[in-house]
Amino acid sequence: MYDCIIIGTGAAGVSAALTLKARGKNFLHLGNPALSAKIGAAEKINNYPGLPAIDGEGLKKAFLNHLEEAGIQITPAQVTGVYDMGGYFGVLCGQESYQTTTVILATGVEAVRPAPGELEFLGRGVSYCATCDGMLYKGKKIVVVCTSKSMEEEAEYLSSLAAEVVYAPLYKGAELKGENVRCINDMPRAIEGDKRAERVVFKNETVPCDGVFMLKSAIAPSALVPGLKSEDGHVATDRQCRTNLAGFFAAGDCTGRPYQYAKAVGEGNVAAHSVCDFLAEKK
Amino acid sequence: MYDCIIIGTGAAGVSAALTLKARGKNFLHLGNPALSAKIGAAEKINNYPGLPAIDGEGLKKAFLNHLEEAGIQITPAQVTGVYDMGGYFGVLCGQESYQTTTVILATGVEAVRPAPGELEFLGRGVSYCATCDGMLYKGKKIVVVCTSKSMEEEAEYLSSLAAEVVYAPLYKGAELKGENVRCINDMPRAIEGDKRAERVVFKNETVPCDGVFMLKSAIAPSALVPGLKSEDGHVATDRQCRTNLAGFFAAGDCTGRPYQYAKAVGEGNVAAHSVCDFLAEKK
Repeated sequence: MYDCIIIGTGAAGVSAALTLKARGKNFLHLGNPALSAKIGAAEKINNYPGLPAIDGEGLKKAFLNHLEEAGIQITPAQVTGVYDMGGYFGVLCGQESYQTTTVILATGVEAVRPAPGELEFLGRGVSYCATCDGMLYKGKKIVVVCTSKSMEEEAEYLSSLAAEVVYAPLYKGAELKGENVRCINDMPRAIEGDKRAERVVFKNETVPCDGVFMLKSAIAPSALVPGLKSEDGHVATDRQCRTNLAGFFAAGDCTGRPYQYAKAVGEGNVAAHSVCDFLAEKK
Repeated sequence: MYDCIIIGTGAAGVSAALTLKARGKNFLHLGNPALSAKIGAAEKINNYPGLPAIDGEGLKKAFLNHLEEAGIQITPAQVTGVYDMGGYFGVLCGQESYQTTTVILATGVEAVRPAPGELEFLGRGVSYCATCDGMLYKGKKIVVVCTSKSMEEEAEYLSSLAAEVVYAPLYKGAELKGENVRCINDMPRAIEGDKRAERVVFKNETVPCDGVFMLKSAIAPSALVPGLKSEDGHVATDRQCRTNLAGFFAAGDCTGRPYQYAKAVGEGNVAAHSVCDFLAEKK
């Protein structure tokens, strides 16, 4: 049982990890060991105090260096669900699962909003996880929507299983190839069906399918954590970064605007302190 | 009329200034041009993301360097009062005064709590400002309590006016001298009187006096800003760093725990964005 699991490796997750480390907590940091792709993407950052006129790549290096100096290792994982077990949380990452007393959600915001029908059919023909659900579609026809080059590998895995893949990459420079792969350069307008997802509507055509994979670098918190309260599309939190679930905290872009490094770093710190307070009260 | 006045030069004030500058606002940054003494005092900071294992002096230099690169100048001033004028704010600094549409209060927390009677007799024998009120006590007997070496100059000024000074320095290495100065190495236990402050109670003696100067690097927000709502000794704010006064924002240690650089930097950023939103709505 971990004291805390931090989900996400953007500025908020990094800040939370450094503070939990300083406080000697037993925690797991899940996400991309090379950090959130978004950090590196910023062209120029003028207002992260102490590091003037740094670019995203520079800030990313500074964060990675800091994590290394602090002896913090990120466990590579795509979290597919977090479940409140009453007193602790179960964190699922495909086939792996972990138990923890508290969670800090720091998954950022997905620029791409859920398509109409996506959340409705989640678990009923719509999946976020190639590793978890890929085998269900062996020899079938699937639509794969992918928001990031870094997830292309999962799409490849799916194309090795499915008979037929319609691939909709929402990024530039897609390289998924194969005789069974056809690309559509459009985003899904809707996912439709009766009891299960049965087709994906694009602008110029509607594709019938057995299943739909939405490969995203960040899953909407409401889809990830059953029962978690949202407000205006963000996780609802108070000034201590507490959510409506006891022991479950959120920090960074996923809690709302401004989407800023300094704000994310501040909330990561606050969430980590709230975790320490929560653990102390529980004893 | 300024868009914003930032009061305080700790981590929150610096962060707010960098963001207002990036957003092209017309603002004034008031405080100590060498930054808050507290920043430099930290022995080792492990959890300010991007600057591993830095000490306070190093972080201070990084902040000063960043302000310089951004072309931000701090106006040296000790703010003695902020008044809501209905639609704008008046900021008093001794004899100077400024007008501004919004305020970001980032004054930190004073480690020394107000003495019993201090707030009660403020303006009636108790003063926070040597420059403003010194002349009132020419030829009189005063008690001067000083929390920081950096304010000793103000105590000197007072000793040049008053007939008799009882000096209570709450720091090490006090050097205030003069035939009319007597030192007490104790903190005031209470300030007492009938309609005005008449005496200061120390552990071993009670000193009758005409007036009391409390020279502090940070004044309690409730004493500085009439009508500002407090909660548990901190300025009450919401997640957008808004206070109960429209256009008046607060950030950093003055809004509550954790007292952390990352948290302060995050709130300074959020407060600056809230200022921008407020100004946009006002147009």
